[in-house]
Amino acid sequence: MRIGLLTGGGDCPGLNAVIRAVVRRAEMEHGDTIVGFRDGWKGMAEGDIVDLSVDSTRGLVTRGGTVLGTARYHPDEHSDATAMVFESFKRNRLDAVICVGGDGTLAAAGKLSDVGLPMIGVPKTIDNDVFGTDVSVGFDTAVAIAADALDRVQTTGESHNRIMVVEVMGRHNGWIALSAGIAAGAEAILIPEVPFDVDELAKQLVHRHRRARSSVVVVAEGASPVAGSLAWSPPRGKFGSIVAGAVGELVRAELEQRTGFDARLTVLGHVQRGGTPTPTDRILGSRFGVAAVDAVRDGEAGVMVALQSEQVVRVPIAEISGRRKQVPPDLVDVARSLTV
Amino acid sequence: MRIGLLTGGGDCPGLNAVIRAVVRRAEMEHGDTIVGFRDGWKGMAEGDIVDLSVDSTRGLVTRGGTVLGTARYHPDEHSDATAMVFESFKRNRLDAVICVGGDGTLAAAGKLSDVGLPMIGVPKTIDNDVFGTDVSVGFDTAVAIAADALDRVQTTGESHNRIMVVEVMGRHNGWIALSAGIAAGAEAILIPEVPFDVDELAKQLVHRHRRARSSVVVVAEGASPVAGSLAWSPPRGKFGSIVAGAVGELVRAELEQRTGFDARLTVLGHVQRGGTPTPTDRILGSRFGVAAVDAVRDGEAGVMVALQSEQVVRVPIAEISGRRKQVPPDLVDVARSLTV
Amino acid sequence: MRIGLLTGGGDCPGLNAVIRAVVRRAEMEHGDTIVGFRDGWKGMAEGDIVDLSVDSTRGLVTRGGTVLGTARYHPDEHSDATAMVFESFKRNRLDAVICVGGDGTLAAAGKLSDVGLPMIGVPKTIDNDVFGTDVSVGFDTAVAIAADALDRVQTTGESHNRIMVVEVMGRHNGWIALSAGIAAGAEAILIPEVPFDVDELAKQLVHRHRRARSSVVVVAEGASPVAGSLAWSPPRGKFGSIVAGAVGELVRAELEQRTGFDARLTVLGHVQRGGTPTPTDRILGSRFGVAAVDAVRDGEAGVMVALQSEQVVRVPIAEISGRRKQVPPDLVDVARSLTV
Amino acid sequence: MRIGLLTGGGDCPGLNAVIRAVVRRAEMEHGDTIVGFRDGWKGMAEGDIVDLSVDSTRGLVTRGGTVLGTARYHPDEHSDATAMVFESFKRNRLDAVICVGGDGTLAAAGKLSDVGLPMIGVPKTIDNDVFGTDVSVGFDTAVAIAADALDRVQTTGESHNRIMVVEVMGRHNGWIALSAGIAAGAEAILIPEVPFDVDELAKQLVHRHRRARSSVVVVAEGASPVAGSLAWSPPRGKFGSIVAGAVGELVRAELEQRTGFDARLTVLGHVQRGGTPTPTDRILGSRFGVAAVDAVRDGEAGVMVALQSEQVVRVPIAEISGRRKQVPPDLVDVARSLTV
Repeated sequence: MRIGLLTGGGDCPGLNAVIRAVVRRAEMEHGDTIVGFRDGWKGMAEGDIVDLSVDSTRGLVTRGGTVLGTARYHPDEHSDATAMVFESFKRNRLDAVICVGGDGTLAAAGKLSDVGLPMIGVPKTIDNDVFGTDVSVGFDTAVAIAADALDRVQTTGESHNRIMVVEVMGRHNGWIALSAGIAAGAEAILIPEVPFDVDELAKQLVHRHRRARSSVVVVAEGASPVAGSLAWSPPRGKFGSIVAGAVGELVRAELEQRTGFDARLTVLGHVQRGGTPTPTDRILGSRFGVAAVDAVRDGEAGVMVALQSEQVVRVPIAEISGRRKQVPPDLVDVARSLTV
Repeated sequence: MRIGLLTGGGDCPGLNAVIRAVVRRAEMEHGDTIVGFRDGWKGMAEGDIVDLSVDSTRGLVTRGGTVLGTARYHPDEHSDATAMVFESFKRNRLDAVICVGGDGTLAAAGKLSDVGLPMIGVPKTIDNDVFGTDVSVGFDTAVAIAADALDRVQTTGESHNRIMVVEVMGRHNGWIALSAGIAAGAEAILIPEVPFDVDELAKQLVHRHRRARSSVVVVAEGASPVAGSLAWSPPRGKFGSIVAGAVGELVRAELEQRTGFDARLTVLGHVQRGGTPTPTDRILGSRFGVAAVDAVRDGEAGVMVALQSEQVVRVPIAEISGRRKQVPPDLVDVARSLTV
Repeated sequence: MRIGLLTGGGDCPGLNAVIRAVVRRAEMEHGDTIVGFRDGWKGMAEGDIVDLSVDSTRGLVTRGGTVLGTARYHPDEHSDATAMVFESFKRNRLDAVICVGGDGTLAAAGKLSDVGLPMIGVPKTIDNDVFGTDVSVGFDTAVAIAADALDRVQTTGESHNRIMVVEVMGRHNGWIALSAGIAAGAEAILIPEVPFDVDELAKQLVHRHRRARSSVVVVAEGASPVAGSLAWSPPRGKFGSIVAGAVGELVRAELEQRTGFDARLTVLGHVQRGGTPTPTDRILGSRFGVAAVDAVRDGEAGVMVALQSEQVVRVPIAEISGRRKQVPPDLVDVARSLTV
Repeated sequence: MRIGLLTGGGDCPGLNAVIRAVVRRAEMEHGDTIVGFRDGWKGMAEGDIVDLSVDSTRGLVTRGGTVLGTARYHPDEHSDATAMVFESFKRNRLDAVICVGGDGTLAAAGKLSDVGLPMIGVPKTIDNDVFGTDVSVGFDTAVAIAADALDRVQTTGESHNRIMVVEVMGRHNGWIALSAGIAAGAEAILIPEVPFDVDELAKQLVHRHRRARSSVVVVAEGASPVAGSLAWSPPRGKFGSIVAGAVGELVRAELEQRTGFDARLTVLGHVQRGGTPTPTDRILGSRFGVAAVDAVRDGEAGVMVALQSEQVVRVPIAEISGRRKQVPPDLVDVARSLTV
């Protein structure tokens, strides 16, 4: 068989583990050939091919990012792109394509499967919001990096009597903020799912600082104040999304003013999606890579491999498309209970 | 309410996160008092109490081990111990006891619940074999430590043209060996579930070393050769279990002899259960601690909190006692596919 | 003897190792008493005392920050502060004070020694610019954190075909930028000592990107363009120093415009001075703490303990005050040779 | 120019950083060619050449081990080897050879220089005993790994009321043991330089355990008991050196018997020399690599590059050959002061 492989959307740790597992499973187990496309759909559309073999993917399991490259490019946003993807599929005599991506990439894969191109999805996103799987590739590492940064600012806050505000990724949900905040024992965690009341938070921090010297406040990029409480019109970037650092700075400034404590902001940014993946992400990526090849061999199409209760299963993309995995209510409750 | 708390069995990273979460949930949410017992059942039997409060447990989430101490002590192995535990329960006017432990501790908790002492279990074990939960506290960190060690010996093997044999924990199962081995891209993984054929392995390594300079072979403590293939009578310690390092040395010596390559052994030992827990274990411990208090408040007894598909649930201890969670077949298959 | 102890200036990893070593050496070796002052000179002036003993400092060696607290406060910037420090010295019946700090704190200690208060200095600063010592407490950890962040953004740059600009600390020198940049194999390192030519850099990156997919550009906070090359008036904060992130954003925007590549900025900020110190910083802090007590016992005053060729020595503060340790020319040359 | 390059002796982290820096400096700065020999002197004698170029050494700075391979092989231990090295030098039309190694490799380089083959040495050894340099490549990482392991066993000791004995490398000196032990706050550090008195140590630990629950005892491989105190004849391996783990087990058993506490042994072994180097080792390796090429270009021969007070200098190999750098007395004193 000839199987295409691409990684789409934002990069994250663990993608190379998927790539290596796909190649080894296909080549060594079945004698199949993997055709890698550079930079996601773009490379498939344009016929930009990366040579992949057991030899060329050796040692990749511990390496961050994706040797295939990736791009935020969706076939249906480019006229002719779908036709070009079809054409590429035929020209490369493919039997199926394995697409590693977040909801955007997976949705595109689902549509292409519907019109006759067999696609198998592998969920990856540091935001952890792909529906139908307990966890996606990249999330565990992102949480580990964010928690490590929180551990670091904690000691500097304590030395200087400060409120340390740290903005982490999460435009639409609080998965990273909640997880890293709980892991680091943060004093407050502000997430998109629960609008924050800065007056109330300031009061709690003032109360806390009677006996403690510092507080760590984790803010997801998409957190927002309780309606009407603050006159805030967040600055937005070219794609309409809130500018990184904006909500962090809002929280910092408002807390500093209300509490009278020195408050400092750190915006974690790109470090959250880079570097050596945690063993957990390497294992997950390896299992998903093997399972994706098996799904192709079984003649599946339009399904995503997923982890459910530590078992790797297959889920129809149609069932998960357009849905986002919510943070479990118990996690929000745990965060509330373990913060100020 | 007055709630007892103890940690039993071998220590592991994440126990302190459980302790801190139990105390904060109980004290801050409900005004309950937590009575800590030192060194597991032993301390409960003997009335050895550790003061626990929100203040005394501050900062514990990132700290390895257990401030309560722990011991391998089972009430039913000591005459009068059960009576003493009963007596202790009454004397301390407890409403319930939260027991954090592996299968031994949980089984004891189940029996005590059956005879009228309300017990809530929290699963922890680096071996990951507690039934009924996707994962137990401590496992993620143990895998991370083992994978890190494998990464390290890999570069030294490559520099010196060697086979690096690393023995990791796992007397009864291959959870750590499989996980760490896959994460580190090891060349062979020997686990108790699949007897190893040292002749076959030696052949594969000889074949591999025609183009590579080194191999990493992960061996679980409880791995054993195919019946009849090697005249091996493993040395056993005072509790009848195989002496640490024994099977690792067997594999090392047999491979060295058969392949002619220099083969070196590293026995990871105690480092696998110590030190700062991974964020994943800190989060799991925190969720379980909160959930255990909630179970007490709901009047539950004889149940264990568990993670199933990223949800925290309650499982009757009676259902999981005496059963061991097996490694999923796909993981064994993935390991096979990604090794030589 | 009764010996005062304070930590001044910005916090950094390794201060607690100094504190622990001072206390143990004084108390266990000589039966001396250590009187800790909170938040540097401020606490000494105001008589804000922290209890320090072998017991209260147990376990501190691995902990970041300073349990004494610290503040950017200099006696000669506050009327009466010097008198209050004198008064505090007498009131606490001190024989000497050990001051852990950067050039500001050490200069103040020198002046006080000149007027009769015996002071012993211990050099600490993540900027590594204290003269007279090979290295100061905190620098090794800051470099390790910055290098780790560079490693992380490198993989994300490679996945996305980007220039990753990372701003690290260093208002007056390039110690952190050079060290972390060399350690991570960065493609360009911009430091205050060498004005950068953005046109030239853009050309080099365009050349590089013909065969590579990404570049990491490290920028020290105090780097500035070649005079006249860019109309740039850096935004300044309340103390007159350049606002964090300003030069990083300048470099990012100018490179993006000139190269046509996507360029992204990460500002490391506070994470660089927090968290668990590297073993190297823990050892250095321990040696300095012991040596400082020995200097007091030997009747020294107005000296700083220092590391010179792996030996701990004493250097008169008068000799180092007002001087800044420059980056060695070979390091600048090495950086040039190993970048684009 | 054509310059040979080899790495000899045991591998360690940072060798690849040296290799990359040598290649870049030579090729990009001077247009020189680097001829790499595989497995140290052996490869040079046998003409086993590894292709080295800026492209083939890309990304090496963060990778442990040596892509050249290394072996414990000395020309003067093999008849004809010196003649073969000469022949290889001529056949490859070399102007000089850069030899990265410990005292053995450096001594051989010195002898060859004496007889007319220009050799430049680069000091590397995790044992840190090369004379004439403040520090050698690999030592900082080895200490970091050992300290991390000590941190880990510390929490498990505390949870279980145990003495944790950890054997680290150091057959001839206590550099690693002292450094890692101080960094981790160990309770006792046994080194070859100071024979240990197990009766005295047992007494101190018994005293300590009245208020503490555990102790960490670091033992260098070459530590030995006070003469006459223990009837101990250490088991020796094929090269006459003490078998790894032997002294650790002696200390463990004797302490367990004398104190009555549970005592456990961990032998760190090979993990100490593998894996990603610390930033400090990557910087040192990079500086040494650049400096070695510069020394060749300057027509030097028979010198070693070295670090002295943060400056890279050149030292005649004749001056350092046969001498071993001792641990500084203050370090032994600091260790004594910070342990039980």
